[in-house]
Amino acid sequence: MKVFRYDTVNLEDVDAEDASKVKVRWLITKEIGAENFAMRIFEIEPQGYTPLHTHPWEHEVFILDGEGQLFDREKTVPLKASDVVFVPPNEWHQFRNFGKKLLRLICLIPYTKE
Amino acid sequence: MKVFRYDTVNLEDVDAEDASKVKVRWLITKEIGAENFAMRIFEIEPQGYTPLHTHPWEHEVFILDGEGQLFDREKTVPLKASDVVFVPPNEWHQFRNFGKKLLRLICLIPYTKE
Repeated sequence: MKVFRYDTVNLEDVDAEDASKVKVRWLITKEIGAENFAMRIFEIEPQGYTPLHTHPWEHEVFILDGEGQLFDREKTVPLKASDVVFVPPNEWHQFRNFGKKLLRLICLIPYTKE
Repeated sequence: MKVFRYDTVNLEDVDAEDASKVKVRWLITKEIGAENFAMRIFEIEPQGYTPLHTHPWEHEVFILDGEGQLFDREKTVPLKASDVVFVPPNEWHQFRNFGKKLLRLICLIPYTKE
């Protein structure tokens, strides 16, 4: 087993031109033996957002703290702590923080995308 | 996309003889389109525990609330909110709540186990 606090993992900038004020910690990855899917935490500052994009793999998300919105190019859905989000493959999505404090969310992706 | 509060999902008894005071909500499953892995929340009451068992698939876990222990038949490791846990395939594991309040954790499993 491996047990560690989430904030012992490096907080990295998100490498995308169309992201703002968002960082990521890659918590569980192939490097520690996870073959099937990866767990990350995204930390989005007030007024920050992830890229508005789509890809052929899903996201499974749990909102830990804060308030935000999920935008799919047609509508926005409010998000708050304790919400669960499933973004199916090939759906446009952007996570936005329109609150006043940090928006933190767990986001998992499959390794089958490779 | 699908967005819903975690506690709108039914809280079910864990179907195992050797579990005590533990319930589960299956949040993201194949039924809503997740083909690769499933997200559940386990809620373990004080003095409760999950089965001490092993299986050929991994767990990816995030501790949401409370305090507990992870037992692998040899040692116990303390757990608290904001801890991340990776249980590799074929490792014995049991989540125990030795605290005074509810231990809530997110636990994901691959569908490749089938």
